[in-house]
Amino acid sequence: MSIIVLGTVALDTVKTPSGKRKEMLGGSASHFAMSARLFTNVNLVAIVGEDFPKRHIDFLRKKGVILTSLIKEKGKTFRWEGEYSGDLNTALTLNTELGVLSAFRPKIAEHQRYIEYIFLANVDPEIQSHLLDNMRRPKLVGLDSMNYWIRHKKRQLLRLLKRVDIYVANDAESRELSGESNLIKAAKKLRSFGPEMIVIKKGEHGVIFYCDKFVFSLPGYPITRVVDPTGAGDTFAGGLMGYLARQGKINEANIKKAIAYATVAASFNVEDFGLSRTSRLTMQDIQERLIAFKKCMFF
Amino acid sequence: MSIIVLGTVALDTVKTPSGKRKEMLGGSASHFAMSARLFTNVNLVAIVGEDFPKRHIDFLRKKGVILTSLIKEKGKTFRWEGEYSGDLNTALTLNTELGVLSAFRPKIAEHQRYIEYIFLANVDPEIQSHLLDNMRRPKLVGLDSMNYWIRHKKRQLLRLLKRVDIYVANDAESRELSGESNLIKAAKKLRSFGPEMIVIKKGEHGVIFYCDKFVFSLPGYPITRVVDPTGAGDTFAGGLMGYLARQGKINEANIKKAIAYATVAASFNVEDFGLSRTSRLTMQDIQERLIAFKKCMFF
Repeated sequence: MSIIVLGTVALDTVKTPSGKRKEMLGGSASHFAMSARLFTNVNLVAIVGEDFPKRHIDFLRKKGVILTSLIKEKGKTFRWEGEYSGDLNTALTLNTELGVLSAFRPKIAEHQRYIEYIFLANVDPEIQSHLLDNMRRPKLVGLDSMNYWIRHKKRQLLRLLKRVDIYVANDAESRELSGESNLIKAAKKLRSFGPEMIVIKKGEHGVIFYCDKFVFSLPGYPITRVVDPTGAGDTFAGGLMGYLARQGKINEANIKKAIAYATVAASFNVEDFGLSRTSRLTMQDIQERLIAFKKCMFF
Repeated sequence: MSIIVLGTVALDTVKTPSGKRKEMLGGSASHFAMSARLFTNVNLVAIVGEDFPKRHIDFLRKKGVILTSLIKEKGKTFRWEGEYSGDLNTALTLNTELGVLSAFRPKIAEHQRYIEYIFLANVDPEIQSHLLDNMRRPKLVGLDSMNYWIRHKKRQLLRLLKRVDIYVANDAESRELSGESNLIKAAKKLRSFGPEMIVIKKGEHGVIFYCDKFVFSLPGYPITRVVDPTGAGDTFAGGLMGYLARQGKINEANIKKAIAYATVAASFNVEDFGLSRTSRLTMQDIQERLIAFKKCMFF
């Protein structure tokens, strides 16, 4: 089954203890797509400015990402600049230039409206709602957001949450939106906001999944080479949605496997800057690391 | 195989969002023993003051803990007062009264010197060394410490580390002693200080085990009812050493299972104040939760 992902395609400038990279291809939709493409066809919905390098478009296309609904508009591409230090768990945002993103209204092709697997990666909840309004046959809708929208568009976000099946959030966002510090309690509270499935990402500490029927938890894949964590959450979401779309059946066994695949995909993302590692990733790499992952947590 | 544990027997006053308890039986050796007793015989080595309530001694004895080397001396029992708030991951120490602990020199019975499984729970590294000097046939030596000793007796701690097989530390201590923020790198560094096996406890986020041959990692057991985390690390260590002592063989499969048992034991500890939950714990409770734990992490 195909996936459609709405999000950002950005130019990222990132500084980490491993070095600095300027204006790399980044953004939530790019990272999501680079991971989900390993499992299924990915239709990307995003906007870039007229300054957006053609080589990035060629690159995404070469990787199999369907760019029918990647709009190019007059103005500047969305830019993000951030820095990581210490344990690399949290980025310090140095600068954000919205550019064309500030007036973005997603437009998709008629045939894309019938795609059943939908992921609303991190953008303004009003833009996310707008895309969802246009979808005709949603089977599984996933949503990511960020602290900025929790603070500034909480009402819109809560309204949107009623319409999604999987809410993917990190631990800080989960605590902030739910008002609960215990993450299982936080997940229960988020569940009460609408989504049947709650996924709480904890960075290096792994992930907690919550639904009415079961709780599932995995540690992070143990890695020493953390170069740039930017996009790890989107890479995770790409693996999760990608695996579920490929299986075509949302049941307990598939959800658990999807979370394991997602964890492994995200572990590759952090090993190099931007999309450098995930763009070279093959299904064989994923399968091999999945076996290693099992070995280091099964008893 | 029997275990000998050196540590504190204390009177703990604890405030958490669930309430306050005054002068409960606590201390690293008590918590360790309450968990390890489920697996094997536990010989406790500690000191209390003349003010120590007889009911606590009776209680420990009733639970099967061997008290031959629990010394009672003139002076006051070691007291600790702490408070937890928010996510209950870190205690704020409000007060510490060393009392008789400040002049403690462990004395053990002649036959106890031949016990092969030794755990040096958190006390001054010089006291830990002193006990170890007296042991005649160490087969497996485990060590716990705390940030205070890392800061104030680092030299003595590093010297002691060369003599132990398993170093059990929490994430903050591991980072501080190793100077590495990535926990796998921290574990590697700690390994280079001497201990063949490194166990990094991450509270609600589970645990990482490191040795030259393999890395092992488990998430925390998902619990919503966190009442009082005091002693969870010691309960963990009790389960780990207890399981290994019972099996009598230190191999990869047993180590992995020991860490799983330890995680489950610790998850019970936090569900009530002090020793309230672990003192009622049975092997059946542990086995049942172990099955539930597997279900929420195997895929």
